[in-house]
Amino acid sequence: MPLVLDLFGVFFFGVSGSLLAARRGFDIIGSLLLAGLTGIGGGIIRDVILGQIPTAFANPFYFIPPAVAALLVFLLAPGVQRMRRPLLVFDAAGLALFCITGTLKALESGMNPFASALLGVTSAVGGGLLRDVVANRTPELFNPRDIYAVPAMLGAGLIAWLWTIGMTSGVWQLVVAAIVFLLRLLALTFHWKVPKAMGPWHRDAKLH
Amino acid sequence: MPLVLDLFGVFFFGVSGSLLAARRGFDIIGSLLLAGLTGIGGGIIRDVILGQIPTAFANPFYFIPPAVAALLVFLLAPGVQRMRRPLLVFDAAGLALFCITGTLKALESGMNPFASALLGVTSAVGGGLLRDVVANRTPELFNPRDIYAVPAMLGAGLIAWLWTIGMTSGVWQLVVAAIVFLLRLLALTFHWKVPKAMGPWHRDAKLH
Amino acid sequence: MPLVLDLFGVFFFGVSGSLLAARRGFDIIGSLLLAGLTGIGGGIIRDVILGQIPTAFANPFYFIPPAVAALLVFLLAPGVQRMRRPLLVFDAAGLALFCITGTLKALESGMNPFASALLGVTSAVGGGLLRDVVANRTPELFNPRDIYAVPAMLGAGLIAWLWTIGMTSGVWQLVVAAIVFLLRLLALTFHWKVPKAMGPWHRDAKLH
Repeated sequence: MPLVLDLFGVFFFGVSGSLLAARRGFDIIGSLLLAGLTGIGGGIIRDVILGQIPTAFANPFYFIPPAVAALLVFLLAPGVQRMRRPLLVFDAAGLALFCITGTLKALESGMNPFASALLGVTSAVGGGLLRDVVANRTPELFNPRDIYAVPAMLGAGLIAWLWTIGMTSGVWQLVVAAIVFLLRLLALTFHWKVPKAMGPWHRDAKLH
Repeated sequence: MPLVLDLFGVFFFGVSGSLLAARRGFDIIGSLLLAGLTGIGGGIIRDVILGQIPTAFANPFYFIPPAVAALLVFLLAPGVQRMRRPLLVFDAAGLALFCITGTLKALESGMNPFASALLGVTSAVGGGLLRDVVANRTPELFNPRDIYAVPAMLGAGLIAWLWTIGMTSGVWQLVVAAIVFLLRLLALTFHWKVPKAMGPWHRDAKLH
Repeated sequence: MPLVLDLFGVFFFGVSGSLLAARRGFDIIGSLLLAGLTGIGGGIIRDVILGQIPTAFANPFYFIPPAVAALLVFLLAPGVQRMRRPLLVFDAAGLALFCITGTLKALESGMNPFASALLGVTSAVGGGLLRDVVANRTPELFNPRDIYAVPAMLGAGLIAWLWTIGMTSGVWQLVVAAIVFLLRLLALTFHWKVPKAMGPWHRDAKLH
C-alpha cells in the first residue's frame, strides 16, 4: 500500500516534468528523463544523504510512472495541461505523501528528529527543484505566489514530534498527510503568502 | 586498459567543458573546474548512488585529463573549436564507453539489471548535464536536434541483458560499445530525431 | 571550538544566500532555504562523496545560522547589503575555514592527499555553486573578476602536503587558514586575476 501511494506520487510529479519538457520543445526522450528526474529525484537525494541505495534503483517498478507520464503528455498534452487544477491537487498529494514518508525513513535510519523533518521536506521538494534546475528556470519552490514548502515543513515537523512522543501509528501519519494536503490546497485557493525575503519597510531598497 | 579508455573518455568530455568555459568568458581556473566536473561528474553521480567512494577520488590520475583539456583550450582554442567534428566523434566514444562501464559497475555491485542500465545511462550523460547546469544553459541532453541518450540507453540495456543471460565476456562489451558509438555517429550525420515531447497533432497548442 | 568556527562559516555563506533571495524577490521561506543550501551545501557534497552522513544532519545546531541569516536580511536588508565589504571579508573567512576542514576530513577518512585537497576545495566552493545554480544564475565561482578558487586550492594543497610530511598540528592549520584568508582579501582589493580560459592571442576568435 505505501508502495502504491509512493508510485502515484512519482507519477504526478512525473507529469509536471513531462509538461515542462513539452513547453520547452524537448523531445520525448527528454520528456521521459525529466519525468523520471522529477518523480524519483527527491527520493534519490534523501537516500544518498542517508547513505542508502536509492529505493528507485532497488525496485524497477519506479520507472513505470515516468514512462506513463511521458506517454500521456505525448498523446494528450493540451488535455493534460487543461487539467491544471486537478494536477495541482495531485501534486499536493505527492507533496503530502513524500514529506511524511521521507521524514519517517530518516527517523527509522536513526537520524535526529530535527534533521529527519528537514530531510522529509528535502525529499518532498527536491524532485521539483531538480526539474527546474535542469530545465534552466528559476525553481517553482522559490515562487512567492503561494506557499509550497510551508505545509511540507509543518507536516514533516509534526511527524517528527509525534515520533519523539511515541505516537508512530499509521493513523496519525494519515491525519498529518491530510493536514499537509489541505493546507496546500487552501494556499493554492486563497493565494496564501508569506512575507518577502526583504522586509516591506525596505521596499525601495535596491540590492546589487 | 579499461583505465586508459576511461581516462580518454574523461579527457574528451573535459574538452567540451573547457570549450564552454572559453565561450562564456570564464578564466582558466573556471575552465579547469568545468573540465573536471564534465569529465568525472557522471562517474561521481554513479558511485555516490552505488554507495561507493567515487573512482576519481581513489585514483589521482583522473585529474590529469581535465588539466590537459583546459591547457589545450587555452593554447589552441580556435583550433580545437574548428575540430568540432572530431570532437563529436570523441564525445561519442566517451558516451559509448561510459554507458557500458557504468552499467557493468552497477551490475557488479548487485543492482538489478534494469536499474543498472539506467545508472549506466546516468553516468554517460551526467557529466554533460552537470556542465550545462553549472554554466546556466539548457542542457545539450535535451537538445531535440539529434538523439544522444537513445544510443546510450540501447547500449546499457544490451549490456544488462547480456549479463542476465551470462554473456559477460569482454568481447561482447566491445561489440556493444561499437554499436553505441556507430549509432551516435549515424544520428549526428543524418540528424536522427525522435518525436517531440508533445505529439505533432497538438502542434498549435500553447502550454502555459 | 572548530564547531563554533564552522557555524560562523555557515552563517556568512548563509547571509549571501539570503541576500540573493532578497534580490530575486523570493519569499522569506525561500530565503531560509537558500541560506541553508549555501551554508551547508558544500559540507553535504563533501560528506556524501566520503560516504558519511552529512555533519549538518547529525547536529541540529547547523540549522540555526541559516535561520539567523534569513531573519537578519528580512529585518536589515539594505544595511546588510551596504556591508558588502565586511561580508566579503567574512565570506573569505568561511572559504579559508571550509577548505581546510574539508581537506582534513577527507585525509582522516583515508583519501589520498591529492583527492583530499580537491574535496576540500569542493566543500569550500560547493555551497556558493549550489546557491547560484538553484537561483538560476551563472555561478560567482566562474566570475573572472578576481580569483576565488585559487586561494582555496593553495590552502587545501598546503594542508594535504603538511599532512603527508607529518605536520598535523593545529598551529599549522591556523597558519594556512590565515594565508588563504589574506590571499583572498588581497585578490579582492587588487582585483587579482588569472588569464581567461582562451589565450589572449585568440582574442578575436568566435566560438560557436
